[in-house]
Amino acid sequence: MNFKEYLEKGGAVIIHDGSERENEADLIFYAGAVDKKKIAVLRKDAGGLICVALSDELSNKLNLPFKTEILSNDERVKDLVVKKTPYGDRPAFSITVNHKGTHTGITDEDRAKTINGLFEIIEREYPEKEFRNDFYTPGHVHLLRASPNGKRCGHTELSVKLAEKTGLKGVMVLCEMLDDETGKALSFEKTKMYAEKYGIPVFSKKELEVLYS
Amino acid sequence: MNFKEYLEKGGAVIIHDGSERENEADLIFYAGAVDKKKIAVLRKDAGGLICVALSDELSNKLNLPFKTEILSNDERVKDLVVKKTPYGDRPAFSITVNHKGTHTGITDEDRAKTINGLFEIIEREYPEKEFRNDFYTPGHVHLLRASPNGKRCGHTELSVKLAEKTGLKGVMVLCEMLDDETGKALSFEKTKMYAEKYGIPVFSKKELEVLYS
Repeated sequence: MNFKEYLEKGGAVIIHDGSERENEADLIFYAGAVDKKKIAVLRKDAGGLICVALSDELSNKLNLPFKTEILSNDERVKDLVVKKTPYGDRPAFSITVNHKGTHTGITDEDRAKTINGLFEIIEREYPEKEFRNDFYTPGHVHLLRASPNGKRCGHTELSVKLAEKTGLKGVMVLCEMLDDETGKALSFEKTKMYAEKYGIPVFSKKELEVLYS
Repeated sequence: MNFKEYLEKGGAVIIHDGSERENEADLIFYAGAVDKKKIAVLRKDAGGLICVALSDELSNKLNLPFKTEILSNDERVKDLVVKKTPYGDRPAFSITVNHKGTHTGITDEDRAKTINGLFEIIEREYPEKEFRNDFYTPGHVHLLRASPNGKRCGHTELSVKLAEKTGLKGVMVLCEMLDDETGKALSFEKTKMYAEKYGIPVFSKKELEVLYS
């Protein structure tokens, strides 16, 4: 089984972004391979926000704005909008969505339905039209918009690039790995122990940058 | 120990909203009593989004808009904004925030810092000014805005009312209880089993409505 098949069949990867940035590992699945069991794995083994990262190209197809742009247009909240995060980048957040076929939107089943639905429409002939027909905001799945090449290099961009370079669509599901013993992000050492236990490949930001340079 | 002290010392409550609405139980702590260990409990034992519900009065003090209002002002997303959710109400979501003293904002430590910081400023002389000084959006803690009396009656409103009727500030931390065996919301039966195991009181929407009528 090659790496493309591994991801398509629901194999996980972990990306760690290094101490000069968030110093954080994200547990990642290919959006086309997510089901309710994998959503449960993400929330139980990782514990952060469950997000869908979309490439710059696919985000444009959906006409997805950055959340900072939306917030900056609102008189009551525009002065609350972050200029630069403590780790140096602007947030990759776009809007939150639910598929219209969900009930509350938050259950494992519902979040899988939202993510699978998004994956299905993303390369159709008129994805924006289908997106606007089948989804609503605000919801319970956070969309992340990758920046164009070189502008930002976080988990969002790295995971999407990994998918694309593997020959897949640029749509990945990410969740930050947290450590309830320390209350902090899971350390690189503990991340490697988790990865070894389940046979999950771990990539560092540096490795991926070398790989794709 | 009376109920007020129980909540102030970090005791949990569960509210179940009944089958005619979300049919969902939320695990709830008083915002003033949350620490990193309790954030870990919320994400591991409940599993949904970790949110802070604020009363209508306190939301006004911070000049917090509903997220639907913000989204409706943006040309690119306004036609995606939900009119009515499948369970009948409009979403209580306001903006997401991080305290400026956090790093990524998502760790147990960071989310506790954001929530505790919000709790501290909420009844100061100029809460809006402090809010705008000390926090930024978008972040990793979801703020929920309770509707004025009678307009909506979900976990947001019920939890805030529970706090106020107990003599506390209307600021509660909520998280939806999910079931990874079924992929659905935790059933009322399983919720009661969990509550019994940890000695947590469970209130139904109907009970609270009778109690506060």
